[in-house]
Amino acid sequence: MQITKEQLQQHNEPQLKKHQAQWTALRQQLEERGVDVASTLQQLRQFQVAIPSWALGTGGTRFGRFPIGGAPLNLEEKMMDIGMLHALNRSSGAISLHIPWDIPDNAAHIRALATELDLRFDAVNSNTFQDQPDQQRSYRFGSLCHTDKEVRRQAVEHNLEVVRYGAELGTNVLSVWLSDGSNFPGQYHMQGALQRTLESLQSIYAGMPDDFLLFLEYKPFEPAFYATVIPDWGTSFLLVNKLGDRARTLVDLGHHLPNTNIEQIVSTLLAEDRLAGFHFNDSKFADDDLTTGSIKPYQLFLIFYELVDGMRRKQRPMQDLGWMIDASHNIKDPLEDLLQSVDAILLAYAQALIVDTPGLQQAQEENDPVLAQEALQDAFRTDLRPLLAEARLQDGAALSPIHCYRELQVRKNLIAARGEKTIATGL
Amino acid sequence: MQITKEQLQQHNEPQLKKHQAQWTALRQQLEERGVDVASTLQQLRQFQVAIPSWALGTGGTRFGRFPIGGAPLNLEEKMMDIGMLHALNRSSGAISLHIPWDIPDNAAHIRALATELDLRFDAVNSNTFQDQPDQQRSYRFGSLCHTDKEVRRQAVEHNLEVVRYGAELGTNVLSVWLSDGSNFPGQYHMQGALQRTLESLQSIYAGMPDDFLLFLEYKPFEPAFYATVIPDWGTSFLLVNKLGDRARTLVDLGHHLPNTNIEQIVSTLLAEDRLAGFHFNDSKFADDDLTTGSIKPYQLFLIFYELVDGMRRKQRPMQDLGWMIDASHNIKDPLEDLLQSVDAILLAYAQALIVDTPGLQQAQEENDPVLAQEALQDAFRTDLRPLLAEARLQDGAALSPIHCYRELQVRKNLIAARGEKTIATGL
Amino acid sequence: MQITKEQLQQHNEPQLKKHQAQWTALRQQLEERGVDVASTLQQLRQFQVAIPSWALGTGGTRFGRFPIGGAPLNLEEKMMDIGMLHALNRSSGAISLHIPWDIPDNAAHIRALATELDLRFDAVNSNTFQDQPDQQRSYRFGSLCHTDKEVRRQAVEHNLEVVRYGAELGTNVLSVWLSDGSNFPGQYHMQGALQRTLESLQSIYAGMPDDFLLFLEYKPFEPAFYATVIPDWGTSFLLVNKLGDRARTLVDLGHHLPNTNIEQIVSTLLAEDRLAGFHFNDSKFADDDLTTGSIKPYQLFLIFYELVDGMRRKQRPMQDLGWMIDASHNIKDPLEDLLQSVDAILLAYAQALIVDTPGLQQAQEENDPVLAQEALQDAFRTDLRPLLAEARLQDGAALSPIHCYRELQVRKNLIAARGEKTIATGL
Amino acid sequence: MQITKEQLQQHNEPQLKKHQAQWTALRQQLEERGVDVASTLQQLRQFQVAIPSWALGTGGTRFGRFPIGGAPLNLEEKMMDIGMLHALNRSSGAISLHIPWDIPDNAAHIRALATELDLRFDAVNSNTFQDQPDQQRSYRFGSLCHTDKEVRRQAVEHNLEVVRYGAELGTNVLSVWLSDGSNFPGQYHMQGALQRTLESLQSIYAGMPDDFLLFLEYKPFEPAFYATVIPDWGTSFLLVNKLGDRARTLVDLGHHLPNTNIEQIVSTLLAEDRLAGFHFNDSKFADDDLTTGSIKPYQLFLIFYELVDGMRRKQRPMQDLGWMIDASHNIKDPLEDLLQSVDAILLAYAQALIVDTPGLQQAQEENDPVLAQEALQDAFRTDLRPLLAEARLQDGAALSPIHCYRELQVRKNLIAARGEKTIATGL
Repeated sequence: MQITKEQLQQHNEPQLKKHQAQWTALRQQLEERGVDVASTLQQLRQFQVAIPSWALGTGGTRFGRFPIGGAPLNLEEKMMDIGMLHALNRSSGAISLHIPWDIPDNAAHIRALATELDLRFDAVNSNTFQDQPDQQRSYRFGSLCHTDKEVRRQAVEHNLEVVRYGAELGTNVLSVWLSDGSNFPGQYHMQGALQRTLESLQSIYAGMPDDFLLFLEYKPFEPAFYATVIPDWGTSFLLVNKLGDRARTLVDLGHHLPNTNIEQIVSTLLAEDRLAGFHFNDSKFADDDLTTGSIKPYQLFLIFYELVDGMRRKQRPMQDLGWMIDASHNIKDPLEDLLQSVDAILLAYAQALIVDTPGLQQAQEENDPVLAQEALQDAFRTDLRPLLAEARLQDGAALSPIHCYRELQVRKNLIAARGEKTIATGL
Repeated sequence: MQITKEQLQQHNEPQLKKHQAQWTALRQQLEERGVDVASTLQQLRQFQVAIPSWALGTGGTRFGRFPIGGAPLNLEEKMMDIGMLHALNRSSGAISLHIPWDIPDNAAHIRALATELDLRFDAVNSNTFQDQPDQQRSYRFGSLCHTDKEVRRQAVEHNLEVVRYGAELGTNVLSVWLSDGSNFPGQYHMQGALQRTLESLQSIYAGMPDDFLLFLEYKPFEPAFYATVIPDWGTSFLLVNKLGDRARTLVDLGHHLPNTNIEQIVSTLLAEDRLAGFHFNDSKFADDDLTTGSIKPYQLFLIFYELVDGMRRKQRPMQDLGWMIDASHNIKDPLEDLLQSVDAILLAYAQALIVDTPGLQQAQEENDPVLAQEALQDAFRTDLRPLLAEARLQDGAALSPIHCYRELQVRKNLIAARGEKTIATGL
Repeated sequence: MQITKEQLQQHNEPQLKKHQAQWTALRQQLEERGVDVASTLQQLRQFQVAIPSWALGTGGTRFGRFPIGGAPLNLEEKMMDIGMLHALNRSSGAISLHIPWDIPDNAAHIRALATELDLRFDAVNSNTFQDQPDQQRSYRFGSLCHTDKEVRRQAVEHNLEVVRYGAELGTNVLSVWLSDGSNFPGQYHMQGALQRTLESLQSIYAGMPDDFLLFLEYKPFEPAFYATVIPDWGTSFLLVNKLGDRARTLVDLGHHLPNTNIEQIVSTLLAEDRLAGFHFNDSKFADDDLTTGSIKPYQLFLIFYELVDGMRRKQRPMQDLGWMIDASHNIKDPLEDLLQSVDAILLAYAQALIVDTPGLQQAQEENDPVLAQEALQDAFRTDLRPLLAEARLQDGAALSPIHCYRELQVRKNLIAARGEKTIATGL
Repeated sequence: MQITKEQLQQHNEPQLKKHQAQWTALRQQLEERGVDVASTLQQLRQFQVAIPSWALGTGGTRFGRFPIGGAPLNLEEKMMDIGMLHALNRSSGAISLHIPWDIPDNAAHIRALATELDLRFDAVNSNTFQDQPDQQRSYRFGSLCHTDKEVRRQAVEHNLEVVRYGAELGTNVLSVWLSDGSNFPGQYHMQGALQRTLESLQSIYAGMPDDFLLFLEYKPFEPAFYATVIPDWGTSFLLVNKLGDRARTLVDLGHHLPNTNIEQIVSTLLAEDRLAGFHFNDSKFADDDLTTGSIKPYQLFLIFYELVDGMRRKQRPMQDLGWMIDASHNIKDPLEDLLQSVDAILLAYAQALIVDTPGLQQAQEENDPVLAQEALQDAFRTDLRPLLAEARLQDGAALSPIHCYRELQVRKNLIAARGEKTIATGL
């Protein structure tokens, strides 16, 4: 299902007057505060969040799954869904594929479809946390860390195959998340497992084209419940330093122990030029994979302030980093969930952009935590929703993507077209 | 596959001499400390841990599952597997069924098989956390808490159906674990959900035979990731108090927030006569469902000390409470995992039985935490494995169940009989 | 130091025009959404947060303290400081005393001073977590839970003495926080300690005047590091139920294990008519006692929504509950910290007041978590600071209390009057 | 108070027979398992745990302190106390000083006393987390990270002064724990604070004698409650790598977020040759600073197994690392607490020494988590207390240090000599 310009205009038309009034008031308020409104709008419009191909169907937990129907059944349908999201918000113009769930059998055709939908291909993701039906050796006891070098070789080759698929589609980033780990003390030799993982990663790194980047995730637990080989940013950082300049540490918001200060990790990785980018989601307990911004919106803002400030200091554009949603849509309609997530990300980014940085720096120099807090909260408390709406309007998107999606009865149409019982590949 | 007395004797024979030496030394040591060895042995031999019917196959996480083959494909095969475990350790003489995974179509036949295997039926478990193929209404948004009274009615009826199955098999306990909860702030009205859950439970309670007990679990999160309707012991306690005398709170070791003092919860529930019993497992991070005793054996001992002490004060036998393993066997052979778990449970129980309680009480009276710690750790540090082996020997079980299992190549035989790719019902 | 109406007017005058413009725009926006603005303003103006007498000086940790000077050295000076805060924001018109730190030697004089400053006396707090120089028996091993009945008797009497001081000043609430607990397994008998605590509380409850309320806190750890006698809401709830109708459970935001859903606890206690009120602060790790709203402002809003909704359902006014700040001002000027805290509390309250409750309820009925989230976040995202400013303006307070405080150089004046090295009683 | 050989013999005499029987049985059991008993005894006897000079008095929390009397009031008395502990267990032959609490005014005299007591000086510790009375600039807003370079200079000079004191006493290790951090988002610039900390550490490193080592701790929170400059091992590792070969990361068991796998951190730091050593304590919730081994003895064993295995692989002796207790003795007699801690440390070390490493490695090679668990738990379950007693006996120490301490009424004598109300420097 595609959304036309006419449909978007029909949606926007009745809201335009109210939006203009709100936007005019906000613009004035921002200008009075010294914000460069035009530049801020420009930065927001440039910011694109990649949608993973596995996020378009109903997700689940180990206890089960409750599908709602209309899920995409192949790569083309997944791209169509993302294209529709992008039409609605003009901020989702990228797709991140997962191999072997989304093997592009005909790369030329897939590239052409992407062009048509105005999508680019973001990082490609490998999968060595599951066994595939035709797979020779099992990842039951790990992949890149496995004691058996044949298993490691198979996993390395899989990653290089993923790189080849990615290269055909025009991306130059391999994203690696390893579930390798142990469930019990003593199950494996921890130093040995780390060393074997390093060597496997070195083989992958060596086999990638010269312009390819390797993004390396970390995660403290799940599915391994005693020791994960790469449990924290420190271990990922240690490994990417050994790999080379084109290896970076990827931060997934849900991959941290309770109470971790994630914004500080971001700050340190940026200072060390090792931040790859983000997998966005939100969580209250563990890797809950909830809608970004639904639980801890202030933390999301603080993270974005570190990103904006850190990249500014390096004089690097935000596009240098990778931005992707990685959530599990168990209860909400996955497409609505993605729209809410992208909106929350952009809102946090916008809040970070309007922070009075000179005022904040002065408070920091003078060790004045009271005014420092006021400076950050002033940005966070400002209602920037009209700014985001204006950015969408200028881009020809929907003033209110969620409501437009509902007005057009998208889910109903998808179910009619694809069926009630469809289940997309993914978790 | 059944294990014969001859096979057990063949296993025990070569180890007997060494065992006798170790047991003699330990018995003497215990007697010197004033332990009533005969009574302790008797208590250990009486203690039986129920095996859940869903624990006999390879478990998994939301990321996947790595089956090892030989899993039981129906209730009879599950009972055979538990019968074999019970033959090996004589401490697993009970089975806990889960409906609809294990509907006993022919109750008389199933009861006869149980008698043959010397198994009794422990609590029956209902399932309203998944949708079944033929189910009219979905539990996507809850069951007993649902806003739609037809969904609640369906869930209540399911529970009463489970009670009927249980009654036919001779158990008088219904065990209820609810995944009901919300993933997002505002998703449901929390007071309303709690009230509806209470009313549904009241309908179940009213519909049970007069001698039936209702065990009510709690869990802070997973699969609900914002607010679970019954998140903690306090909420379960509040509900069972409103239900009546035959309702109790069930403690699953993995269902707690980080750092919770579980032994204290046990202590309080025992004092209030509301402890139902236990679901045993172990965990490092969340509801990891690992082998009992594999991560925090000292905590397990401390919990057992509260149980032993609390039941002694009430002059109630340990059999008054429910004891069940509830773990997920993702990496180990499930049957070996269960043998290790039962062994760890009995070890902790034995340690609790030999605590110098008068000495401990004196230290407590005198506010002497140093000697109190010495008293507890003295029991924990004593190597009681020969005591457990002697109990097994007296019961005609294997001196070393795990090694006997391996010597008899049980898994190999199960795979030969049932196939490589079998997947048992369960999580 | 007192702040005059003239000083407040001088502060407000130059900001009035800008405020009026912002307020006019916000009022219109709220009216368009159907908010009863006059009633909302009224509710905000009525809401008063008590300031504890021990929060006016620099706090510290076990590692040390960095005083900034000007701390109040007696009860009168503490009341003067709170009076000044109340003059600045007209929302801090209550004081909560701590005995023995603030014994009112001349109750009549203290009451007169309170009247002059327009303050009322909120809950009085007892202290059995420290030994006082003249104390007969030590609380080293607990107070209400102690094995020695003479210690328990002393602690009970202390609490009743606190009640008498409170009654003289016109309050009818005793607030009890117990540090009673153990640092090591076995240190005390957990059931015994709980039972003795209950009996001691019963003695206190029986000794209070008939109109007195007993607020009972809970806390998982610190200063006890293994088992605290009242570790969670469930235990407090169990105790207050046994005490009687005038006993309630008090929630301190920092007194929870990692990831606890506090708003759910509030919801349940309200439904059961057992919520006493709040101790406000914020935290990232443990009982960090930071400025309210500085770390998790969205959680604060969600809590307030439960409060507003729950009290509305009971048709009870918010004033029925107790509201107090309980933080530790280690790094910020304590008075500025309190101003920021009160502001954050009122902001969360205001956000909760403007939630589109019918819209939210409809989403809940229809199991629509997407629109439920939109309803809550719409209120949270709205910039309500002009509403709070208007409420202050109508009350004759400062438009911007923090900046007014700084313009008047209050800290400098306090240091001049009281000295550089002053340390107030408290933690 | 000194303990004589005669007193020790009097204590041991009545227990000898029983000990010999237990030791004979255990030795035989160990030999049957292939343990090199003589070498194990030798390694245990060589292992020395340093006692920090600040651990000899009653510790406290921010809520207060309950001193028990008899605390040492100067460095000589502290050394006497440690000498007495060492006489009792012969495993505490080192002292770790803290400047400015323990400035050795007369180094020659102090060295002579140490020789007499058979103590050596372990790492010296600096203190920039408190302000001293005569200090020019305040550490209220940090020390090595401070925005004011004069504060940083003062803190660097303090550390170099500590180095000089240490060098005079014959140690070559400076141990640095920084409380530097922020309580509120925005309070300081995180990248700036980290960079300034690095530069300050570089100044210290450059100013140390060529043979001096710098041990750098990390800690996630307390006393800073939002962002600590060095919050985790990754940040410490990053810094020590930049400092040079003589900088290492020090692990304090209590300095981790909930559920952290500490043994894995140890494993990684050992593999990277960056592990400095340990600060031992135990905890249930946060940095509780309880008696080592009182809460999680199995975790302590797992850590020691990584240490033993890792050092063996590097062919380095355990003495190459630093071993120190760092706990807070709030409730127990501090000296008894230290005796229990040293005992628990040695027990975990002994358990690690007797692990069947070839068997474990085979299980690891074969991905057999069941037998790997058996191998580790077999060592942990073996009752090695007679082995520790034998090591003490061979060293001329007490068979049961705690009971010897009580028989000699040490605390009573210390109170008689030093008074009831003494408070030692420390926390």
